[in-house]
Amino acid sequence: MNQHPDIPLDEWLSGEGPDSDIVYCTRVRLARNIEGYSFSPMQEPPEATALLRTIQQALQPLAKNRDLQWIDLEQEDSFSKQTLVERHLISRELQMSDRPRAVVVDEKGRESLMINEEDHLRLQFFRAGMQLQETWRAADRLDDEIADLLPYAWSSRLGFMTSCPTNTGTGMRISVMLHLPALVITKEIEKATTAIAEMNMTVRGLFGEGSHAVGDFFQVSNQRTLGESEDQIIENLGRAVESLVHWERRQREEFRKSPLYIEDQANRAYGVLERARILSSEEAINLLSRLRLGRLLDLIEEPSLADLNRIFLMTQPGHLQTRSGRELHPGERDRLRAEWVRAILSGGAEPQPE
Amino acid sequence: MNQHPDIPLDEWLSGEGPDSDIVYCTRVRLARNIEGYSFSPMQEPPEATALLRTIQQALQPLAKNRDLQWIDLEQEDSFSKQTLVERHLISRELQMSDRPRAVVVDEKGRESLMINEEDHLRLQFFRAGMQLQETWRAADRLDDEIADLLPYAWSSRLGFMTSCPTNTGTGMRISVMLHLPALVITKEIEKATTAIAEMNMTVRGLFGEGSHAVGDFFQVSNQRTLGESEDQIIENLGRAVESLVHWERRQREEFRKSPLYIEDQANRAYGVLERARILSSEEAINLLSRLRLGRLLDLIEEPSLADLNRIFLMTQPGHLQTRSGRELHPGERDRLRAEWVRAILSGGAEPQPE
Repeated sequence: MNQHPDIPLDEWLSGEGPDSDIVYCTRVRLARNIEGYSFSPMQEPPEATALLRTIQQALQPLAKNRDLQWIDLEQEDSFSKQTLVERHLISRELQMSDRPRAVVVDEKGRESLMINEEDHLRLQFFRAGMQLQETWRAADRLDDEIADLLPYAWSSRLGFMTSCPTNTGTGMRISVMLHLPALVITKEIEKATTAIAEMNMTVRGLFGEGSHAVGDFFQVSNQRTLGESEDQIIENLGRAVESLVHWERRQREEFRKSPLYIEDQANRAYGVLERARILSSEEAINLLSRLRLGRLLDLIEEPSLADLNRIFLMTQPGHLQTRSGRELHPGERDRLRAEWVRAILSGGAEPQPE
Repeated sequence: MNQHPDIPLDEWLSGEGPDSDIVYCTRVRLARNIEGYSFSPMQEPPEATALLRTIQQALQPLAKNRDLQWIDLEQEDSFSKQTLVERHLISRELQMSDRPRAVVVDEKGRESLMINEEDHLRLQFFRAGMQLQETWRAADRLDDEIADLLPYAWSSRLGFMTSCPTNTGTGMRISVMLHLPALVITKEIEKATTAIAEMNMTVRGLFGEGSHAVGDFFQVSNQRTLGESEDQIIENLGRAVESLVHWERRQREEFRKSPLYIEDQANRAYGVLERARILSSEEAINLLSRLRLGRLLDLIEEPSLADLNRIFLMTQPGHLQTRSGRELHPGERDRLRAEWVRAILSGGAEPQPE
């Protein structure tokens, strides 16, 4: 395992994959704990350090077939950690925690093992578009391999033991990130999220727990982990997501019939992105969202979806700071973000921070 | 006098003239009434018609040295009248009135005689930029010529008699239209308007009485017409306007030192104007205002001030409808306005309404 956190642009952020007009990506997260250690939130630092060493040692064989990076988060500066959050490779909780902790990241940046988050191990798997089965199978495979290397805390009655009881059982959270601008514009989104909640699913914003929806992006995930098998969870989530996808597509078809409003919104968004000198992260995402809808409905010819995805990622605070090699004040970030956007949209050179 | 209301783009709308970075234009208005007729609001239609004929006859000699148009407003359609309002050649009151009424307009569209507005005659004179003396002299000259042709209602004690006592005396209202974006952005405008009110001047929006300020444009005019000579009124107004101009310039100098915000605002405005598919009149004026400030501070290279002025005028509802040759729904106007703006900014062909 090498030590350098220079993760490539993940293929699951390519904007491709099944149903990619609406489904951005699929994520499976498994919560696992190792027998013989206290749950992470109750550890004293020496126990946490010992656990980290045990896991690092035990996982060595995994690196044989994979190009893995072990990233000790106590060694990382704040904007490197922020970048990992923006790639969804670590959670905000792991970013902010003061425990000894680490993350293992695969070479494509689409799988990560968070170590000493709320649980000893949190395995995360990302795939582009709607890929519930494929993502789950990848997770299941690695989970089996790790189970051969480390003794999981498991009860025959409850299943996998977790730090928080809401995860006990399968320890699985499967979520799908959706782009639902048409439902937001038509205000159907409230009805839609109520319907999803009634199917025992949770709807959240872009960065998980506690985050509000920005730029019309939503995460739908299972609420229950106990009393249902992984296959049942996947089936139920699949049904919920399919209904949202269907609903969003129907609204988009309506817009296709009278496209003026979306054409206007997409063009305005493009005009501002092309020219603004100051751009907040939230505004950028909102503009990208409306521009993306216009592109998908062929109401505007430029820019490419690939450029939109690149802007989406590159203009987040951690990425900007990592590229700059130093911490930036919010004001500097908003300026550099606008420069990046203009550079990408004009096909020009990357901006250099002062 | 010819009968066709096809008035050229007035030179006072050229955006040139003294202090034109801030002062859009100067206007003098004189209220006059003819002896032997009831004040306009009290007339029955036959008396109003008789007055119109009397005035039309009496003014014939004026047409010798001038190219004047007599426009009978009862014959004009609603968007032609709206266009005259947008050129400031008639007031909203004259537009909406149901009395027999007319307007005489000079060939440059910078002088107009409203007939049977609140008073029998309202002489209006416009000049580009800050030209109090010049505008007043032009008004005084024509006023003298008309006084030789028609018997004005005049009292040696009060001066010119007017329908509303607030105009009695000189019957003069002199006003200056100012573009004060820096004072609006820095919120100094409230202090500024309070100071102006204390100097017995009135501050209003773009279209006079009752209109709110749109696009950072303000009209400053004298409140008093009685007890002060024309020269005193002009001197006082001059002092008030000079202090506003000075105040605005000082704020603009501050922006020149740290130009990022204005550069951002001007570019965003340009981006939206270049691309929007739906544009309301009010939004267009607001965007033009911010773009104009950016141009004047050399923070953006395009478009030309002449193009900005052209857009300013061409995209108002009456102008749009006159060009289309028919009445347009508000939705159609907002669409055609956006087309016009794009056409002017790209140097392309004039849009054709469907």
